[in-house]
Amino acid sequence: MTNTTGKIFQVTSFGSSHGRAIGAVIDGCPANLELSTEDIQKELNRRKPGMSSITSPRNEKDEVEIISGIFEGKTDGTPITAIVFNKDQRSKDYSYLKNTPRPGHGDYTWIKKYGNYDYNGGGRGSGRVTIGHVIGGAIAKKLLNKFKIKVISHVVQVGDIKAKTVNMNLIEEKALENPVHCADPVAAKEMEELILKYKNNGDSIGGVVETIAMGVPVGLGEPIFGKLDGDLAKALMEIGSVKGVEIGLGFGVSTSTASQINDEFYIKDKNNPNEKTDIVNIGTTTNTSGGILGGISNGMPIVTRIAVKPTPSISMLQNTIDLEKNKETKIEIKGRHDPCICPRITVVSESAMAIVLANHMLQSGFINPSNLDKN
Amino acid sequence: MTNTTGKIFQVTSFGSSHGRAIGAVIDGCPANLELSTEDIQKELNRRKPGMSSITSPRNEKDEVEIISGIFEGKTDGTPITAIVFNKDQRSKDYSYLKNTPRPGHGDYTWIKKYGNYDYNGGGRGSGRVTIGHVIGGAIAKKLLNKFKIKVISHVVQVGDIKAKTVNMNLIEEKALENPVHCADPVAAKEMEELILKYKNNGDSIGGVVETIAMGVPVGLGEPIFGKLDGDLAKALMEIGSVKGVEIGLGFGVSTSTASQINDEFYIKDKNNPNEKTDIVNIGTTTNTSGGILGGISNGMPIVTRIAVKPTPSISMLQNTIDLEKNKETKIEIKGRHDPCICPRITVVSESAMAIVLANHMLQSGFINPSNLDKN
Amino acid sequence: MTNTTGKIFQVTSFGSSHGRAIGAVIDGCPANLELSTEDIQKELNRRKPGMSSITSPRNEKDEVEIISGIFEGKTDGTPITAIVFNKDQRSKDYSYLKNTPRPGHGDYTWIKKYGNYDYNGGGRGSGRVTIGHVIGGAIAKKLLNKFKIKVISHVVQVGDIKAKTVNMNLIEEKALENPVHCADPVAAKEMEELILKYKNNGDSIGGVVETIAMGVPVGLGEPIFGKLDGDLAKALMEIGSVKGVEIGLGFGVSTSTASQINDEFYIKDKNNPNEKTDIVNIGTTTNTSGGILGGISNGMPIVTRIAVKPTPSISMLQNTIDLEKNKETKIEIKGRHDPCICPRITVVSESAMAIVLANHMLQSGFINPSNLDKN
Amino acid sequence: MTNTTGKIFQVTSFGSSHGRAIGAVIDGCPANLELSTEDIQKELNRRKPGMSSITSPRNEKDEVEIISGIFEGKTDGTPITAIVFNKDQRSKDYSYLKNTPRPGHGDYTWIKKYGNYDYNGGGRGSGRVTIGHVIGGAIAKKLLNKFKIKVISHVVQVGDIKAKTVNMNLIEEKALENPVHCADPVAAKEMEELILKYKNNGDSIGGVVETIAMGVPVGLGEPIFGKLDGDLAKALMEIGSVKGVEIGLGFGVSTSTASQINDEFYIKDKNNPNEKTDIVNIGTTTNTSGGILGGISNGMPIVTRIAVKPTPSISMLQNTIDLEKNKETKIEIKGRHDPCICPRITVVSESAMAIVLANHMLQSGFINPSNLDKN
Repeated sequence: MTNTTGKIFQVTSFGSSHGRAIGAVIDGCPANLELSTEDIQKELNRRKPGMSSITSPRNEKDEVEIISGIFEGKTDGTPITAIVFNKDQRSKDYSYLKNTPRPGHGDYTWIKKYGNYDYNGGGRGSGRVTIGHVIGGAIAKKLLNKFKIKVISHVVQVGDIKAKTVNMNLIEEKALENPVHCADPVAAKEMEELILKYKNNGDSIGGVVETIAMGVPVGLGEPIFGKLDGDLAKALMEIGSVKGVEIGLGFGVSTSTASQINDEFYIKDKNNPNEKTDIVNIGTTTNTSGGILGGISNGMPIVTRIAVKPTPSISMLQNTIDLEKNKETKIEIKGRHDPCICPRITVVSESAMAIVLANHMLQSGFINPSNLDKN
Repeated sequence: MTNTTGKIFQVTSFGSSHGRAIGAVIDGCPANLELSTEDIQKELNRRKPGMSSITSPRNEKDEVEIISGIFEGKTDGTPITAIVFNKDQRSKDYSYLKNTPRPGHGDYTWIKKYGNYDYNGGGRGSGRVTIGHVIGGAIAKKLLNKFKIKVISHVVQVGDIKAKTVNMNLIEEKALENPVHCADPVAAKEMEELILKYKNNGDSIGGVVETIAMGVPVGLGEPIFGKLDGDLAKALMEIGSVKGVEIGLGFGVSTSTASQINDEFYIKDKNNPNEKTDIVNIGTTTNTSGGILGGISNGMPIVTRIAVKPTPSISMLQNTIDLEKNKETKIEIKGRHDPCICPRITVVSESAMAIVLANHMLQSGFINPSNLDKN
Repeated sequence: MTNTTGKIFQVTSFGSSHGRAIGAVIDGCPANLELSTEDIQKELNRRKPGMSSITSPRNEKDEVEIISGIFEGKTDGTPITAIVFNKDQRSKDYSYLKNTPRPGHGDYTWIKKYGNYDYNGGGRGSGRVTIGHVIGGAIAKKLLNKFKIKVISHVVQVGDIKAKTVNMNLIEEKALENPVHCADPVAAKEMEELILKYKNNGDSIGGVVETIAMGVPVGLGEPIFGKLDGDLAKALMEIGSVKGVEIGLGFGVSTSTASQINDEFYIKDKNNPNEKTDIVNIGTTTNTSGGILGGISNGMPIVTRIAVKPTPSISMLQNTIDLEKNKETKIEIKGRHDPCICPRITVVSESAMAIVLANHMLQSGFINPSNLDKN
Repeated sequence: MTNTTGKIFQVTSFGSSHGRAIGAVIDGCPANLELSTEDIQKELNRRKPGMSSITSPRNEKDEVEIISGIFEGKTDGTPITAIVFNKDQRSKDYSYLKNTPRPGHGDYTWIKKYGNYDYNGGGRGSGRVTIGHVIGGAIAKKLLNKFKIKVISHVVQVGDIKAKTVNMNLIEEKALENPVHCADPVAAKEMEELILKYKNNGDSIGGVVETIAMGVPVGLGEPIFGKLDGDLAKALMEIGSVKGVEIGLGFGVSTSTASQINDEFYIKDKNNPNEKTDIVNIGTTTNTSGGILGGISNGMPIVTRIAVKPTPSISMLQNTIDLEKNKETKIEIKGRHDPCICPRITVVSESAMAIVLANHMLQSGFINPSNLDKN
């Protein structure tokens, strides 16, 4: 297992869906960052199930406790540990899953690899472990905000329904106005209806989530094996259900010519032509690169998109194997699940991106690694 | 900078386009693997420029020397160092690039980050540094072959032209039959013509490269921050010009329902129903997961695709900034460049994937890390 | 901060002396190891204060809870988290320490580095954080025991009193028979008296702790930057109060000639001369190397010794600085402290060594990293 | 194998005694450090054999070439590769060592671990691989010197002869005045005679080397698993022949009381009592801690000592095993070896320490990791 990520800003995640607790240890956060339980709780609330008719109705409060790393309301440079104790520990009988892996889930590979597998609610393979991501992300965001960096996320596609482009500065606010977390209200409504249709069929549908970072300075990323786009791709692909990652124009580059998509440089403020040429004053007229050139941020917004598969837990009958009896069988998954996981993935995707950015801000020397008061 | 990748099978890459040499140190390869210069040279030859009318005509033999890590024709457990000395070191005058970053290239971000930037041929930002990847990949492949794992790659799209599906076992052979390295000969011909058209215009075109690993056992990948798909996404995204990565169905999942794409399990050999249920005998009827479930390989072929942008070096006039004079200017890039980099990226993509797989085979205990004779 | 150690068997430690909790996350332990709270608790009890007249009387039960990583009584390959909640959180007023660093303690350097420092009982600089080491060590030992490796520790010197050599197989049992944890009962008695003498003076005394691993196979250690002796030296030196580390003959080598100390090889069982020459049958007649040659274990017992300084917390008046008023001042440290920390360090030293060995057993391929049932 | 060390300033070492080359890749050195071949060569010359009657007479020029990482005389942020090609590749017949491991050497453990072992001159187990350390150390020192940090080393003991204490500022100069590299000229003469005596007997003698860093700021070191003393202990113990490491008073603490050795704080410049209390103005009256408190540097000189064993290659007949024939035999090692390795270890020890300090200076935010011009 590898449950620690990051070189300087490190997140160690632990816990499982129906074990005693889920949480994370965040190491490498500089001292003197104000941090409260509420900073983490408000992000966890965005991830929580049961918030609308299109999410799983699992009844969890997901209350977080910070048990180390804070002194007098601020980080003190020691590892920050935050825990959510599971309330809904043994609510259902999952024993029918013990030897019959669910299609599209990790049950089969986890059983084969580890032998001893907590099949209750998917164990540590459950989407519930993203609580660890969100804890890490909440702290990363708090840190990034001190440096004017903002990470936002919204659903841009569900099935065939695509959202219209929305002004980047409005996305955060508008995405929170509907349960789909799509910033285009018209598309949001259609998406919601589509999701409900599949929910009623006992099926689920996929989509695309876009996550953007604004205010990132020029210079994050370490070629050639610590490139910013490489680290983002890893962090995003590791979120359960993600099968594709794009930066900037993404797969659109494959049908483009360089003359169409090369982002040309320009001087932003022509009234100050003699000013020192720096992050403030150089931009690109387009942003097909998604803010990353040669593996390093170029000062433009960092734009990523992930392909999210339909939640594999569906109530329809599916073919599988009885691993004990060694024969083919069928499975019908019980319970009510998210008919589209995209809305709840927005905050997870933000978290994954924020963790990567916080790590690179530290790694590239933009933030003093010991003490924010030295910045 | 971060120029070392891998936890057990580690590749440290060094060198720049027009410096004295490019190479790599491979650490963590077990002892007793037969390895010759020819094993590496034959892979480098696939990457070499000047092989056809659709690749850059730079005249480089790219001859590799192994200077450490081999004893009596076999690895001895010590780091393997392989070097390609640059012949074409100072063939052109690149001084016009010193203060005028090329659109779509890393010049601007590298100058801003490091201050001292070798602008000759893109320095270490050049595609030429993938020689290091290919050296590492050649050794990784030699190791994987001992365990019946094969990694192959082919161009599946250039601009709007898409290749037809080709039987997986024929891809390698057929892709080598044409300069585009597309396994569908009809599409290959059309792609070649399209590439030549853009070449003649002084422009370039993007495409998609598919890379596949066959024979991978169940059990590679370490949730939740060392997942196999995460590591592959990182390795592939870090190849220059790549803006998107897909596993299995990729972005196709966003318009699918679970009932359509959940890969169902079946027993391969029904004549041996009492046989121990293992990698040999369980498969999925479809492979939309691309061989990875819950971040762990499931025994099916691992299928990835990358979106490759059109080479940004084009002869058309482009807008940029004179960083010294701090004013907008125009740039006309000299020299002849790859009008489509996809064909040459195939071997790089194979290499990136092979390095990741070799590392995971060691990390997951499938290969003895010290000595192959103990396997 | 860096609070994670180990490449495969990873321990992430968190918590502080007077915060809410202290604990550790252990990642990379293979599945199917039987593990109970009691396995950890019995080791923590050996570290606990208040066990005799020569240890600090702090009243802590140090009860451990496992909150993740165990399924049906066995590890399941997911991270194991174990926590000790602090009962004695706010028993004293430590505010006099806020701006006046104690000589010999880390107060001064922690304040300077992090700015925000939890001065209560030394915060995370307290010896109490070795609870994290002991949790990790308990799990490492349980794992090592499956492979017949045993780690033991005893006090061999306090001040000028040195213990006589004791048969290696008797050390563990005999060391537990007295509060000094010295395997030589005569010396133990003298040591205890010496410690009490310094305790009564309000002073403290240093000593030497020897830690030994038996049953280690040939082949642990990865030259040249992952040598077994290097990793042991780091792990032991990082224990608070340790100022010196020796392997085998240690500083004794400096006054020796090679003809005196080169360990000569011999065949152990001469009756089976034709048997395959392996770990069972080759030994060295002496063991000045302490079981490590060229950075790799040679099958002989691994022998280390650490120099432990006298606990710096003494009641005598000492010179220091008032950091706020920026002037010299004096400090009198309150409370009752360990007059000799050696007895309590034995279990910490065992833990540090066990963690290193468990990691190397996995890294060198002696233990399947995913699942013990595959061994 | 693990041949890369350091988190930010990373040294990857490669090569073997009688292979084609030995060298190192240094990654993570910021751009804009002036660096020439001569900077490395002058350090390698201090390590070179054949410099006096008390070192091995192997005839090697050890000429270094830099093949990457320098642009216009300065580092450019890309990995620096420096290589020494071996001239003396096949000068002797070492085949008698193939199956008969030399006592005190790593031959036995390397053969057992890797199977395929380059027995010529000890292969990669040879002291000759410290060329990689010295390359890394030379670059680290150049970087540290920009920040007024100086690392020096001298021999303080050979056999029973101990050097007198020499003023720290004179050590470097005086240690270079004699072949023993002992700063006390009287002891140096006695040591030289003692070494020659053992040389004439075909034997060798051990000693102690002290290495000191001056000018280190307060704040290097990351508790609790990245402590400065832990990293130094590892780096020093990994040097071949080292069996013990001390920081500050070292093993002397075991016979001391806290009242004797607690380093008390004082204000250095009492004429500026109102000055901001910082590294300039707080010191300790003694330095038994060796400049490290709580794992973090305290601004005092960092003082380490290593126990160096007598070179195990001696011409006397020794007992060993014929691994092929599986029986006891005797070995007589041919050639002329260092009768005391301490003098040549001084520069290696400096290098090891400098590499650790450069890494921590970067890790703790004292040096901009990308570009020195940003400092």
